[in-house]
Amino acid sequence: MTTVYLAMICGVIAVLYGIFTSAQVLRQPAGDARMQDIAAAIQEGAKAYLGRQYTTIAIVGVVVAGVLALTLGLISTVGFVIGAVLSGVAGYVGMNISVRANVRTAEAARTSLQGGLTTAFRSGAVTGMLVAGLGLLSIASFFWYLTGPSGLAPNDRVIVEALTALAFGASLISIFARLGGGIFTKAADVGADLVGKVEAGIPEDDPRNPAVIADNVGDNVGDCAGMAADLFETYVVTLGVTMISIALLIQADAAELMRLMSLPLIVGGVCIVTSIIGTYMVRLGGGSIMGALYKGFFTATILSIPAIYVASVYVLGDLNATIGGAGFLDAGTGALATDVVAAAPAEGAASFTGMDLFWCMMVGLVVTGLLVWITEYYTGTNHRPVRSIAKASETGHGTNVIQGLAISLEATALPTLVIVVAVIASYQLAGIIGIAFAATAMLAQAGMVVALDAYGPVTDNAGGIAEMAGLPDEVRERTDALDAVGNTTKAVTKGYAIGSAGLAALVLFGAYTTDLRTYFPDLTVDFSLSNPYVIVGLLLGALLPYLFGAFGMTAVGRAAGAVVEEVRGQFRDNPGIMLGTSRPDYGRTVDLVTRAAIKEMIVPSLLPVASPIALYFIITAVAGQASGFAALGAMLLGVIVSGLFVALSMTSGGGAWDNAKKYIEDGNHGGKGSEAHKAAVTGDTVGDPYKDTAGPAVNPMIKITNIVALLLLAALAGGV
Amino acid sequence: MTTVYLAMICGVIAVLYGIFTSAQVLRQPAGDARMQDIAAAIQEGAKAYLGRQYTTIAIVGVVVAGVLALTLGLISTVGFVIGAVLSGVAGYVGMNISVRANVRTAEAARTSLQGGLTTAFRSGAVTGMLVAGLGLLSIASFFWYLTGPSGLAPNDRVIVEALTALAFGASLISIFARLGGGIFTKAADVGADLVGKVEAGIPEDDPRNPAVIADNVGDNVGDCAGMAADLFETYVVTLGVTMISIALLIQADAAELMRLMSLPLIVGGVCIVTSIIGTYMVRLGGGSIMGALYKGFFTATILSIPAIYVASVYVLGDLNATIGGAGFLDAGTGALATDVVAAAPAEGAASFTGMDLFWCMMVGLVVTGLLVWITEYYTGTNHRPVRSIAKASETGHGTNVIQGLAISLEATALPTLVIVVAVIASYQLAGIIGIAFAATAMLAQAGMVVALDAYGPVTDNAGGIAEMAGLPDEVRERTDALDAVGNTTKAVTKGYAIGSAGLAALVLFGAYTTDLRTYFPDLTVDFSLSNPYVIVGLLLGALLPYLFGAFGMTAVGRAAGAVVEEVRGQFRDNPGIMLGTSRPDYGRTVDLVTRAAIKEMIVPSLLPVASPIALYFIITAVAGQASGFAALGAMLLGVIVSGLFVALSMTSGGGAWDNAKKYIEDGNHGGKGSEAHKAAVTGDTVGDPYKDTAGPAVNPMIKITNIVALLLLAALAGGV
Repeated sequence: MTTVYLAMICGVIAVLYGIFTSAQVLRQPAGDARMQDIAAAIQEGAKAYLGRQYTTIAIVGVVVAGVLALTLGLISTVGFVIGAVLSGVAGYVGMNISVRANVRTAEAARTSLQGGLTTAFRSGAVTGMLVAGLGLLSIASFFWYLTGPSGLAPNDRVIVEALTALAFGASLISIFARLGGGIFTKAADVGADLVGKVEAGIPEDDPRNPAVIADNVGDNVGDCAGMAADLFETYVVTLGVTMISIALLIQADAAELMRLMSLPLIVGGVCIVTSIIGTYMVRLGGGSIMGALYKGFFTATILSIPAIYVASVYVLGDLNATIGGAGFLDAGTGALATDVVAAAPAEGAASFTGMDLFWCMMVGLVVTGLLVWITEYYTGTNHRPVRSIAKASETGHGTNVIQGLAISLEATALPTLVIVVAVIASYQLAGIIGIAFAATAMLAQAGMVVALDAYGPVTDNAGGIAEMAGLPDEVRERTDALDAVGNTTKAVTKGYAIGSAGLAALVLFGAYTTDLRTYFPDLTVDFSLSNPYVIVGLLLGALLPYLFGAFGMTAVGRAAGAVVEEVRGQFRDNPGIMLGTSRPDYGRTVDLVTRAAIKEMIVPSLLPVASPIALYFIITAVAGQASGFAALGAMLLGVIVSGLFVALSMTSGGGAWDNAKKYIEDGNHGGKGSEAHKAAVTGDTVGDPYKDTAGPAVNPMIKITNIVALLLLAALAGGV
Repeated sequence: MTTVYLAMICGVIAVLYGIFTSAQVLRQPAGDARMQDIAAAIQEGAKAYLGRQYTTIAIVGVVVAGVLALTLGLISTVGFVIGAVLSGVAGYVGMNISVRANVRTAEAARTSLQGGLTTAFRSGAVTGMLVAGLGLLSIASFFWYLTGPSGLAPNDRVIVEALTALAFGASLISIFARLGGGIFTKAADVGADLVGKVEAGIPEDDPRNPAVIADNVGDNVGDCAGMAADLFETYVVTLGVTMISIALLIQADAAELMRLMSLPLIVGGVCIVTSIIGTYMVRLGGGSIMGALYKGFFTATILSIPAIYVASVYVLGDLNATIGGAGFLDAGTGALATDVVAAAPAEGAASFTGMDLFWCMMVGLVVTGLLVWITEYYTGTNHRPVRSIAKASETGHGTNVIQGLAISLEATALPTLVIVVAVIASYQLAGIIGIAFAATAMLAQAGMVVALDAYGPVTDNAGGIAEMAGLPDEVRERTDALDAVGNTTKAVTKGYAIGSAGLAALVLFGAYTTDLRTYFPDLTVDFSLSNPYVIVGLLLGALLPYLFGAFGMTAVGRAAGAVVEEVRGQFRDNPGIMLGTSRPDYGRTVDLVTRAAIKEMIVPSLLPVASPIALYFIITAVAGQASGFAALGAMLLGVIVSGLFVALSMTSGGGAWDNAKKYIEDGNHGGKGSEAHKAAVTGDTVGDPYKDTAGPAVNPMIKITNIVALLLLAALAGGV
């Protein structure tokens, strides 16, 4: 139990870091009256949007909580509420610091690049540490309460279900936040660009554009709040499912289980500390901006190695002792030692040592590093992919988009190979549990990764404020330089989140099959690929990301069209706007995008909740319960097998398109205003909903499908 | 054996129909000297390209044949050569009639729409009937030779391997033809458009454009010859795998097996006859062009119902008698009755009656009809999807592409649901064999479906010739009207081919697992989804269509860029071209595209050949042979689970983009020359490699991966 306390202390440290660093950021000068005026409009819009978004989500949340209370009982409902509320808090707080840091970053960039970088990055670090800290605190405290005051055994079904419900709460809120925020930000962005840059011929962030505030609000509610909720979800689900898998798969006494289950918590804890140290290493020191951010990231990652080692020794004692060997599963083959369910699939929890677990976590760290490197290769302006898109822009809009699509397809290859090698390596070391620990080590870096990401929208906003407030050109140049790097770091987070989902999928599936065996011991479910219901499940699972992507893209297109109409109307009704004599009605556009985003987010977000339930009941009606469970299980893997590629291609491709435009704007292939630049703007517009709406929302979608299946099993078995 | 003779007679009828109808087409007037001049240039280019393409493929073919001769023996090598040669012949003959019909269609369209339609459709029907006829003849004669003169039992391993090798020959040639032709046609098309329409501001098919002949050659070598080779492959693989599955899964005496294995052949045979009748029903009769084509298609399909029924009664006698019930597999659960390989997956060959098989084939016909209907909905100008893209073009290039991508993602949903329902229904009726017969009935319609498709490039060419030869405007209007329908029929064939692959995948996987059990009876291979090597295989299989698509898109982009450079050079060096005083060097452009297409097709075509072999050996080295086979099997399903979506989204999306442009050209949203039209041209350009290069080539790719795995198994077991 001491370990759990220590983890909770690390969570508290993260929150304290957040409070302390927020205060640091807020103490900085907030610029002149004009700048503060603009920032206030952005703050107001962002708060208004998030307020309405969370009110809408709350209605769904209350309904779902009611269903859970009736089917799974009170403790699970409490877990769900904790996950849901803290996911919302992570997003809200992130937005809150972001909308205050933007104007301060613009002000700091007046003096120096370093000043802008420091302010923006600190603000990102606040969000990052709160995501990791609140995630760790929620899961550690809940686990502490259940095993401590409630006196439950660590592998009690109540704990398994409660942790699942906690993850469900986080996931459900995050899919709404990711998608709603994603639709908001890209509808405003695309709409503003189309009517401003293309039709009216005014620059980006020109204050005469009535959609310009909505565009800046979008950065905060989508790229910041939505992303924070998403990563909070990924954190909670990954740590949670690692603990659940230990509880389900390892046969050991309560003390040993307790030790093992608290290992993911303390790993998360020590990595918060290393991430905090890393944040202080982000300094230009003569190098590039990306180099400065990498200094922080690699410091945190490299310090994690000894930290994880020490934590493992502390928790497990002798790292060379064997874990789980005498237990439930046969060590040699990973096949079930019991013959109760001969037809049920074998779970891969072979026996392993603590040292094996340590190496699995090292695999996770290597995967994190490689995914960062691959993403930078595909989205950075210094490498072949982005340059090939920029080159293709010379021959027009069509070839720009063709090359961008080619890159987006290609960008799936290396991450998939990395994930495949990681699955094999960690499975060879410690079975399913090994894969779970690799994913845990990846997510333990979340504080730092989110910090890098959340820095992006702040600099984007700072550039907008500099433009609107008429600050000198060199300020805008500095914020632009910061922002270009932000495009890459934003892509990194998405690749990282979906990559960890690839690892976690097998673990979630393992939890599903084990649960199935526990709840329905007499049922023989055939998960073999030669069972046609498995194929049916795989195909329908694979369909979900496509359908979800279609919804997301259509929603952005439709909402952006509405923005165009609205802005055209304002220009028509009030000719003073273009002359600069009267101020456009920013609030009306914000309000329009708010309503559109909230309306459009509902149906696609419910798709992954309803699909597994519908599939189970339909197949069970047609071919019996065993086929229903087989199809449902296969759907869980179908959604990851297809979702991984959809998400990777969309997020990398979108980032590459964006930076190809930036590369041309830097004076290549004719520079700003050339035909190549126009083609690159088209590519960037196409990439916007790809990378910021449809692509990233696939990550929580995958988790929800999996978690709903786990909860459905528990509910069918009659709850606890 | 009489049944096999009857099937062979039907095959001969198809070939005779082809000869007779070719003569009919060739008797028609071939236009004036200018038109014949242009047509001769297209013929020359097409023949030169196909000659070089098949020479290159022949080198690969000889190497592969040598490997097969060393590993699998002479008979399999002969099968491979038959499949390879006839696939080439189908493509070559199709191109040959197509390049003669184009100018005659243009000439006939001078008089009436009906005249143009008749000539173009007859030419398409020649290709269609030759694809089906040669496919049927090859497989029926080979089967006759092996079971008759060679005296082998119908389920002898030699026959199974020989039919597999035949399918491999067809598939290997067709992936080169599909991809090489696809790169040729779209590189020429995109290049010609970019430099002609966009840069020089001259209309499509303007004779001053040096790439214009290459563009028209492309229609014949890609959309006609490549498509024909692809559908030949699909036909041979589907019928072949149905026969192989019967041989592997049904335990019965030789006479009964012989009857059952000849059923797919005779079904193919009678449907050739109904397709021929259908071709005579294609008449305008006051209705639309699509309506006229549908009359032919639906006549053929509806006549197939009684034809298949009579064929089934003829072959099986009493349709209510039970087949395979007392055999190898337990009828009730589909689980293996033998306990030799308890961990091996159950094969779904339950017992069934002849009537069940008949109903499975009806499922196949319904799937064909539904896929045609769905494709028309997504790519026709009368429905929401195409109109939404046209509407989105009003706000620019970016929104056009966003909406097109949204539609392409969405377009995967209904076909997937249809395939899933068909899998469930036919499996419930007759297990894996039922699914195989559903696919067979689908492919039995290939003659008619290919006829509809091959009609498209002829009208496209006819329009080009009309433009270049300066025929009156109303001729071009007629050919344009014919061509717009061709866009939809082309999309239909692709959806149909990939849909049948979806059904056939499970059958191919069944053949793989059964082969595995036969060759390696002592090896326990775990195909359960909880085996991490299954996940590894699924992920890597799912990666293949993405990587393949990336290669295809990049190849088109690169080759199109080379065309742009070449044409710019010609304009620069010879200013007389634009003035119309001197003739561009068409041959040089054709030659350039030829070299580019052949160079670019090699590596991606070898990807599906090399990947399964590499995966097997790497995983076997890391984790043993059982894991190697598990990963390989999962790769087979991964490639279909992902490939189905990649192919459906690309082909439907591309068709929708193309017709959105046509819809605007018909005078909507501002018509030709408007900003919306420019945006729609961009979408069309993006859709080109999507729908004609990368998307359709996924179909043979899936088959090759599967067949290579089957051959690898046989080779590892030491051949026959």
